[in-house]
Amino acid sequence: MLFETRTSNLRNIETGIGMIIDCHGHYTTAPPELGEYRDKQKADLERNSGHEAIKGVINISDDQIRESLEGAQLKLQRERGTDLTIFSPRASWMGHHIGNESTSKFWTEHCNELIYRITQLYPDNFAGVAQLPQSPGAALDASVVELERCVNEFGFVGCNLSPDPSGGYWTSPPLGDRYWYPMYEKMVELDVPAMIHVSAACNPAFHSTGSHYLGADTTAFMQLMTSTVTQDFPTIKFIIPHGGGAVPYHWGRFRGLADMMKLPPLDELLMNNVYFDTCVYHQPGIDLLLDVIPLKNILFASEMVGAVRGIDPETGHYFDDTRRYIDGSEKLSDADRQAIFEDNTRRVYSRLSVD
Amino acid sequence: MLFETRTSNLRNIETGIGMIIDCHGHYTTAPPELGEYRDKQKADLERNSGHEAIKGVINISDDQIRESLEGAQLKLQRERGTDLTIFSPRASWMGHHIGNESTSKFWTEHCNELIYRITQLYPDNFAGVAQLPQSPGAALDASVVELERCVNEFGFVGCNLSPDPSGGYWTSPPLGDRYWYPMYEKMVELDVPAMIHVSAACNPAFHSTGSHYLGADTTAFMQLMTSTVTQDFPTIKFIIPHGGGAVPYHWGRFRGLADMMKLPPLDELLMNNVYFDTCVYHQPGIDLLLDVIPLKNILFASEMVGAVRGIDPETGHYFDDTRRYIDGSEKLSDADRQAIFEDNTRRVYSRLSVD
Repeated sequence: MLFETRTSNLRNIETGIGMIIDCHGHYTTAPPELGEYRDKQKADLERNSGHEAIKGVINISDDQIRESLEGAQLKLQRERGTDLTIFSPRASWMGHHIGNESTSKFWTEHCNELIYRITQLYPDNFAGVAQLPQSPGAALDASVVELERCVNEFGFVGCNLSPDPSGGYWTSPPLGDRYWYPMYEKMVELDVPAMIHVSAACNPAFHSTGSHYLGADTTAFMQLMTSTVTQDFPTIKFIIPHGGGAVPYHWGRFRGLADMMKLPPLDELLMNNVYFDTCVYHQPGIDLLLDVIPLKNILFASEMVGAVRGIDPETGHYFDDTRRYIDGSEKLSDADRQAIFEDNTRRVYSRLSVD
Repeated sequence: MLFETRTSNLRNIETGIGMIIDCHGHYTTAPPELGEYRDKQKADLERNSGHEAIKGVINISDDQIRESLEGAQLKLQRERGTDLTIFSPRASWMGHHIGNESTSKFWTEHCNELIYRITQLYPDNFAGVAQLPQSPGAALDASVVELERCVNEFGFVGCNLSPDPSGGYWTSPPLGDRYWYPMYEKMVELDVPAMIHVSAACNPAFHSTGSHYLGADTTAFMQLMTSTVTQDFPTIKFIIPHGGGAVPYHWGRFRGLADMMKLPPLDELLMNNVYFDTCVYHQPGIDLLLDVIPLKNILFASEMVGAVRGIDPETGHYFDDTRRYIDGSEKLSDADRQAIFEDNTRRVYSRLSVD
């Protein structure tokens, strides 16, 4: 067995502290029927690019869902000793640029309904986060409606908001633009955070998980930094995934740019509203994150089963077993780990009720 | 005085080792006549978007050039104890997306000629690197011609190649595409490296120095990683500036992605051809860079006078005084510093003859 047993119970007994919540997981292992539905949507659009989608049905049984998770996310939770994954539809499949608003609406509804079923089947293991039916150039009305449905009817605790529904052409206004404000108003009203997460790039300049995701993370931080979003919505909460893109590595640059622009210090301007996850797949990267970013702004996450699924030959462990890097940090106290593993995440995802 | 005197002579006497070469500086302090020429180009294009530019003249005297440098780059070289800056036209002003091929051709020629004059006025302080007259969608013929002119007639030692001449819309083919090969052939023939450097973004999604530069660095690395460029040109050399964008912070992710894609290890695939500079503006970032990237791939640079010109309140020193971070590293030996400050750069910029 590649992993020693590191159950949360052991952790509780050993340290007297609580749960390990992974705030960033996508349903990357869905049964093939989900992909077949999407392929049918694409085929309809191939015949008629203006095709108005109908919702239709996807026949996936509870047993299929169980099977898709038992050997993957649930197995890894057990092996890695994490307790709960904040879980959303597969990010690379959001594909907001495909088709039109009707395409995105029904695709998103199905994806979110699958997540809801997972949270019903495994209420102790998964909490739901909504995909949004964004569409390039379209207003966010449908996204606001879907967020409300997912939070109020399904008990979801957050959403994934893409700053670039074009898939790598960056045609949307920046996140400080009033275009986004209906979504921010709803997020604040419902007290749910958004993880800022793009989907797969259709622009051949970008590799989705290698450059587009990381570039989008950095871009989102800079868009927020040069906006009045946190002044206009003092209680809004954003998670920038993948360890904040390039931001922590260049924290001096960003502090210096804020200074050049006569902005308040970043701690004051953004760091009561913006959080970074720990999806950084080596110890030195995590050490840097912990070194420069305030502890209260760091949320544990692994994005398993995700972009990087192999074993690091330098360590003999999975690249994305990020708990090892948090455990392996020489600077964290038990109380610090408790903040990163659970308390910070509960503060940000305040509707989370699992315990 | 903010800086203690740290001249290279002192360094030589103290340590017995050589020069400090800053491989990344732009002429950001040019006399106003340069900007006025560009404004006239833009005004001509405003009247007629197809305006065919003529070269014309820019009247800047040697004294004006001296004045523009004495209080800026030359003063900082003295104060920081660096010896030579590998110097190119202002990156944010390259603006390849403005106008048409004739616009870029004559703008670029003037910019490069100014750099040449600087290298003649201060041969011990500056070595030239060429801007290229790229234009979105246009073939690279004019860029190849200008590179040849700058190397053979002006003694330049490298060029700045933009992977996105559209200014943030990423409409060019990725760097692995045969589109770029005429430039690579010329670079190899002349034995000059390219620093991969975008210009200012005209896409409002991006902040030029905050997100576009860093995103482009990461994107370029991923484009090269998924290409056959280093196999097709085994002796080609690229510098990825700004500390490699997000790459070192996510080195585990990139190693893991190479593994997922069944590529050779990065050290074998890219690290005989790709170099990172040290334009990372805080000690923890530099420490990470030194920790994960092979020493032979790191070239000293500051990009002064550039994106971040203020003083870090946490240290009392200029953010972009990157020599302090190299000096401040606890892991480097004198021999390591010699490699970063001089030897690696001489190997990459092999036409450099200053000594």
